[in-house]
Amino acid sequence: MKIIVDGMGGDNAPESTVKGSIDAINQFGIHIIITGPEEIITKELAKYQYPKDKLEILNATDIITNDDDPAIAIRRKKDSSLVVGLNALKDGLGEGIISAGNTGALLAGGLFIVKRIEGIDRAAITLLYPTLKGASLLLDAGANMDSKPEYLQQFALMGSIYMEEVMGKKNPKVGLINVGTEDSKGNQLAKETFQLLKDSPINFVGNIEGRDLPMGDVDVMVCDGFVGNIALKLTEGLASSIFSLLKKAFLSNLKTKIGALLLKGQMSELKKTMDYREYGGAPLLGTKKPVVKAHGSSDSYAIKNGIGQLKTFIEKDVIKAIENKLITTEE
Amino acid sequence: MKIIVDGMGGDNAPESTVKGSIDAINQFGIHIIITGPEEIITKELAKYQYPKDKLEILNATDIITNDDDPAIAIRRKKDSSLVVGLNALKDGLGEGIISAGNTGALLAGGLFIVKRIEGIDRAAITLLYPTLKGASLLLDAGANMDSKPEYLQQFALMGSIYMEEVMGKKNPKVGLINVGTEDSKGNQLAKETFQLLKDSPINFVGNIEGRDLPMGDVDVMVCDGFVGNIALKLTEGLASSIFSLLKKAFLSNLKTKIGALLLKGQMSELKKTMDYREYGGAPLLGTKKPVVKAHGSSDSYAIKNGIGQLKTFIEKDVIKAIENKLITTEE
Repeated sequence: MKIIVDGMGGDNAPESTVKGSIDAINQFGIHIIITGPEEIITKELAKYQYPKDKLEILNATDIITNDDDPAIAIRRKKDSSLVVGLNALKDGLGEGIISAGNTGALLAGGLFIVKRIEGIDRAAITLLYPTLKGASLLLDAGANMDSKPEYLQQFALMGSIYMEEVMGKKNPKVGLINVGTEDSKGNQLAKETFQLLKDSPINFVGNIEGRDLPMGDVDVMVCDGFVGNIALKLTEGLASSIFSLLKKAFLSNLKTKIGALLLKGQMSELKKTMDYREYGGAPLLGTKKPVVKAHGSSDSYAIKNGIGQLKTFIEKDVIKAIENKLITTEE
Repeated sequence: MKIIVDGMGGDNAPESTVKGSIDAINQFGIHIIITGPEEIITKELAKYQYPKDKLEILNATDIITNDDDPAIAIRRKKDSSLVVGLNALKDGLGEGIISAGNTGALLAGGLFIVKRIEGIDRAAITLLYPTLKGASLLLDAGANMDSKPEYLQQFALMGSIYMEEVMGKKNPKVGLINVGTEDSKGNQLAKETFQLLKDSPINFVGNIEGRDLPMGDVDVMVCDGFVGNIALKLTEGLASSIFSLLKKAFLSNLKTKIGALLLKGQMSELKKTMDYREYGGAPLLGTKKPVVKAHGSSDSYAIKNGIGQLKTFIEKDVIKAIENKLITTEE
């Protein structure tokens, strides 16, 4: 299996992407194609021992940053590590791609270059949301601002297949993010989506509320991209503000510092529970070939885990499964 | 000043409402009209010493619970503590009302009985959102599911006046909850609202993201009721799940228990930072007379604080200020 890594994507690239690629080769026995300026990548690779026949560099001299406008960057920066990688995917040089770079650009590039699955109207950005019971898949996490009920239905279907095939959840429970658990709740979009989901070939368990997101009682959480983006950023902001308050409390005086020391092991466990790095990446769902987005601040461990997820994404042939499900649904 | 208290509203009523009323009389020197079954309220009052001439009971034999359908309850339960209270407000027996009961019923009753301010299209449920820098006003927290830009503009205006007059924030900063800080971000509603807010007589500072909510950099946070409800419940759910993980960590073993003991004082300080009870209540904005919603789980301390807020709401004549601002805006 050959996996393409956007070598320059992410806050810690290329250190994270190069080290993550090598660790993935060693752990999973796969081949990696890493994109980026040959000189920079080669220099980074020189730090490590690795099976040379399993890693190749695809030269790409430009970089898309987070400040770039996604659609413009994809069109103009043809020699960026991301666009070169997406073209390699389209041309069949590799079977899937992972990037920790600009999310919007990955989405735009996925749509323009890799194209959508036939029968899927929109692609969704997903997020593996850390809950008290492991990760749930939240989608759409920000790709589509004004959605139609049909889009959300397709997201539910794709998310459901992904959680079953890649994350190993049997018959995953799907919930619709809403303002109340009763069937009739919500805005127009939520009400119409509820009706569609009820009649879909998924394990739809009904509406869930904001407070249910961290509980992990459902495996797939569906909402439109506006709500999803606000929910995910609120989660990040709130967790980080609570932890910064905790840190302040722990450093108040000698007594609290000793207390904090005694709690150190448990606190790192707790932080791990809420850590995106364990999951490594979240799929973009709706493109014709597997695309995985890793968190912008991914380190090599997160990249390696993301590559592992992408490997399962490819092996389980999730996209074929989505296509088959679409045919069944339409019949 | 006479303030009406829904004597049977809230999880801890009537203990919380009776004690909260008495404490408010003693602290603020106001008059209270408390609604509810005379026998029950009298029995509860008998526990305390208080200036008898400053508190009267308005008999109301029925109760609206959280299981009641709001609109139906308001129409059918005419002798409930809430409906009796709202009618007393309409008839001028008191100058404002506070309830910790069914939020939807308070909203429906506020609209049907007290009526809307002329020129205001919708009423908003608000929330005093705890941030790292004190409370910010979030609205709409769930009253209106499918909003128009004009509604959000009116909410921004009303929220701005409330924060300035009642909460003492000079020239309060208003932010629009959105998916990015750039002017052009968002769904159709957010984009159109952005343009309206830019031209409104408020201190509009632009878009804010989900992660900004707990930071407290703006004083008024505007969104539609669907997003607001999900954001507030997500905040509650996430805070409570983090605290439950902390508790588990603290109770792991003897070492962590000692650590937790040493941190006790600081941890309660931290919890207080995030406690709705300090604010006591949040106004319903858009009704012709002052209506305040206290949190369902309010104790007497929260009710007393809510009455204090309602007192300022009345004294500062916020509704007159809103009416005046509307006239200026229309000119």
